[in-house]
Amino acid sequence: MARIITISREFGSGGRELGKRLSEALGIPCYDHQIIEMVAKEYGFDQNYVAHMSENDLRAAYPATIARGFVAPNYALQQSVQIAAAQHKLIRSLAEKGDCVIVGRCADTILEDMHPLNLFVYADQKSKVDRCVARAGEKEELTVKEILRKMKQIDKSRADYRRTFGDGNWGRKENYHLCVNTSGKEIKSLIPGLVAYAKAWFGEE
Amino acid sequence: MARIITISREFGSGGRELGKRLSEALGIPCYDHQIIEMVAKEYGFDQNYVAHMSENDLRAAYPATIARGFVAPNYALQQSVQIAAAQHKLIRSLAEKGDCVIVGRCADTILEDMHPLNLFVYADQKSKVDRCVARAGEKEELTVKEILRKMKQIDKSRADYRRTFGDGNWGRKENYHLCVNTSGKEIKSLIPGLVAYAKAWFGEE
Repeated sequence: MARIITISREFGSGGRELGKRLSEALGIPCYDHQIIEMVAKEYGFDQNYVAHMSENDLRAAYPATIARGFVAPNYALQQSVQIAAAQHKLIRSLAEKGDCVIVGRCADTILEDMHPLNLFVYADQKSKVDRCVARAGEKEELTVKEILRKMKQIDKSRADYRRTFGDGNWGRKENYHLCVNTSGKEIKSLIPGLVAYAKAWFGEE
Repeated sequence: MARIITISREFGSGGRELGKRLSEALGIPCYDHQIIEMVAKEYGFDQNYVAHMSENDLRAAYPATIARGFVAPNYALQQSVQIAAAQHKLIRSLAEKGDCVIVGRCADTILEDMHPLNLFVYADQKSKVDRCVARAGEKEELTVKEILRKMKQIDKSRADYRRTFGDGNWGRKENYHLCVNTSGKEIKSLIPGLVAYAKAWFGEE
């Protein structure tokens, strides 16, 4: 059976970087944004639209324009469900191809029967803000207040998405095999330990 | 600075075994029951008494016999605080000696300024019950109901103890660096990964 590692993560915790580095160290593919791209391509949607729809709860498919009657609400809801179903199918087909790391998108619940190693990556607020500021670089000028708002909103969307398409317990340690606190740590410093943990988990020496 | 690993754990999760095996693999001492023994010796108390007092909240120092007026309540409370203080002092002096693993007793909060690697070990209920049954062996005949009652009571005591002498957030993942789910796993299978994680954490190759 394929050795699959899923990464769920708080916004700003470095979970995406952790997934990428872990996959590189293990020499296996990492699927993250590619999932969005593939789904967008299949349905002829804009990538940003799919990204928005795929990590938000169904209520987010009911924006102001719809509420005001410009678009039939059922259509947006249908699209949201369609995108989630397409993602679900795609994640399963990627996992069936072989060993991989999958970041986000409820892969842990979607692939439950394939016995993945499920990680949750989190950090304290200061570390997450620092990481967001460092990542934003010079292009994006976000205030700490704006980052905190964005962080809260995205984590809420992830929890909501899981509630809709998974089991409603995003971030609860009982749902994961290993919860990794990245506060004050460089992500790359955690990789050797996680590589060894994953190898031992899958019964390799 | 000494490399100190603290283990907090749910009853039945295998945290004690994990601490012992991890210390053996790292070639460093593990302090667990020895702390109780040393404190009992220093104060001339019975070990079971110290064990009871040291992982219970202060209200547990107020049993029925006291409530009925046979013993002055202040005396029991004083003893409880005295034992906690002795443990605190002892844990610090053990940590100052050098690298070690310390199981339980709020070592993570007591040694905060020494920057330990703090692990939390947990498991699902079925795994914990199975582990308790296997551990009890032939001598002790506990029903599942009795095990569940004991499990709930001990975990509550640990949370209460932390509330009294630590920061009140026993088991909350944000308080630990790594949360390890042992459900359905043999503890020894997790050790190579944890050894590598600990070494990388402390900056060793």
